[in-house]
Amino acid sequence: MGGDGGPDVVVAGINLVLDRLPGLTFLLFGDEQRLRPLLDGFPHVKKACRIHHTGDVIKSDAKMAAALRGGRKSSMRLAIDAVRAGEAAGIVSAGNTGALMAMAKMVLKTLPGIHRPAMATYFPTIRGESVMLDLGANVECDAENLVQFAIMGAVFARNVLGLELPTVGLLNVGVEGFKGNEAVRGASASLQKLPLPLSFHGFIECDDIGAGTVDVVVTDGFTGNIALKTTEGIAKLFGFFLRKALTETPRARLGALVARPALQAFRTYVDPRRYNGAMFVGLNGICVKSHGGTDAFGFSYAIAVAANLVTRGFNEKIKEDLERLYSGESDPKVVMAK
Amino acid sequence: MGGDGGPDVVVAGINLVLDRLPGLTFLLFGDEQRLRPLLDGFPHVKKACRIHHTGDVIKSDAKMAAALRGGRKSSMRLAIDAVRAGEAAGIVSAGNTGALMAMAKMVLKTLPGIHRPAMATYFPTIRGESVMLDLGANVECDAENLVQFAIMGAVFARNVLGLELPTVGLLNVGVEGFKGNEAVRGASASLQKLPLPLSFHGFIECDDIGAGTVDVVVTDGFTGNIALKTTEGIAKLFGFFLRKALTETPRARLGALVARPALQAFRTYVDPRRYNGAMFVGLNGICVKSHGGTDAFGFSYAIAVAANLVTRGFNEKIKEDLERLYSGESDPKVVMAK
Repeated sequence: MGGDGGPDVVVAGINLVLDRLPGLTFLLFGDEQRLRPLLDGFPHVKKACRIHHTGDVIKSDAKMAAALRGGRKSSMRLAIDAVRAGEAAGIVSAGNTGALMAMAKMVLKTLPGIHRPAMATYFPTIRGESVMLDLGANVECDAENLVQFAIMGAVFARNVLGLELPTVGLLNVGVEGFKGNEAVRGASASLQKLPLPLSFHGFIECDDIGAGTVDVVVTDGFTGNIALKTTEGIAKLFGFFLRKALTETPRARLGALVARPALQAFRTYVDPRRYNGAMFVGLNGICVKSHGGTDAFGFSYAIAVAANLVTRGFNEKIKEDLERLYSGESDPKVVMAK
Repeated sequence: MGGDGGPDVVVAGINLVLDRLPGLTFLLFGDEQRLRPLLDGFPHVKKACRIHHTGDVIKSDAKMAAALRGGRKSSMRLAIDAVRAGEAAGIVSAGNTGALMAMAKMVLKTLPGIHRPAMATYFPTIRGESVMLDLGANVECDAENLVQFAIMGAVFARNVLGLELPTVGLLNVGVEGFKGNEAVRGASASLQKLPLPLSFHGFIECDDIGAGTVDVVVTDGFTGNIALKTTEGIAKLFGFFLRKALTETPRARLGALVARPALQAFRTYVDPRRYNGAMFVGLNGICVKSHGGTDAFGFSYAIAVAANLVTRGFNEKIKEDLERLYSGESDPKVVMAK
């Protein structure tokens, strides 16, 4: 049933993603009366979709507990159930973030050895693409949570971003070893001796995010959320100032006209819709949360993120890394020391 | 003795600010052997300056405790002493932030009623200019600290930004009343009944910073530092992508040439040097910290910030607000309830 734009955005997003990933098929959970006419508008989407009717929807302002208790027949819950039952390889939703995380955690459970799932996203930097987690699922994290985030982030960087030996940085309010709280200092100590294919860079600061200093940015959900939301706001501010400058005078407007393809390229580089789709990592199933306010273009990217995670065997690779860690190649008590 | 660029940046910065604020005079604390030849290069700067020689400097990597103990004859300490003695109306430094805050707090003391000084900066938004505090002086804050930050921020907004009834927002990881920790919830309760000329907006999120949703953004030093550093990194990332797009093709380069004045205007809008100069607010004296890596243009803005705070009687206005608060117009215990 989608986010702010409802099922229209979902169906139009499927239409767009099928151009890039033509093999995908979809189970749509929601109100058949609303979905059927939408599908009629896109014949090839209709062929790729099967509707599972339900009239029950988790509202965007629903509390987590209420969603868990009362939402058993909701479109969100039924979609998660389908992943658990193996009918779907993954779920994509633009709905209520808290409810999606809580239900997915309850129904799918976490991967063996993972204590808490995290929200992750990849994003553009000056050096290429990086991945950051957690973005808000865990407001408080201990050292072991952060180490597990690092492992999952590195798996993503290796298998989805294609980096052989990803660098991992721990976000902190200063790069000196004595800075930060117990959790980041403990995680830093553990990450230095992790017997996995990742290169631990040490502490980084928030200006390193955009600089692309590391491939994997590890942080607690509070800090990650602050950084993410700040970025959203600053991106809009920059767009505002650029538009203002390029429309102020006739000469500016002429220049903007000549440079239009370049400005279009710039907009593409920084288009947040191309990085839409927060991954809930650490769950026993692929689960991707689209921004609630995105459009069809953005939603198509969230679908592609989920498809990518499935194709690359993301969860299997996480399990392999965790098994390697706990298999006796090293003493997990040392590695995972808080 | 300046920041990364040393006293050269300080003297060249004075040269620039004297064009805008010709009445200013300066006491320069540092190595006379280095300062004198620099002043010889700017005759009208030389006339406005008096050198207080000292060979002792607080290094940029010096620990706070060491600076407090061993730095009694340092250029930084002597400059703060001059403010305390009334020989200078304020201090501007591009040196070690931690040492400057610790020494300024020890020597100048906090304003009556203020428990902890904060670092503040004003910045551009879509709606105009806003002020944010704390930026990193206090990693952990209680409700009362946040309320005092709000009061000081509102004084700045009224007297320096010229807003009659500034709006104040508390940064949080969600705008719902039940979200956030005890400190922000307690501060929110107190701010709702504060008998001062400010309009409390409630909670805001980090994307509200750039949007200019409020005139005064109040937060703890950890969160403020995260937001500030993220902004620095994202600003660089956007500049990188814009340059890339505008140099990729001959047509892009031509458009950039035609739009050059507009692009220059854009750069000016988002130039962080124009917002250089973090104010240490709540101290019994004006103290401004310039970014250590800034140039003469940026340093001139830090000087202007200090001059502005002095001219507007910033500290006197804070005292007035605190007196009004504690004078019986309201019950301070209620207002300041944790």
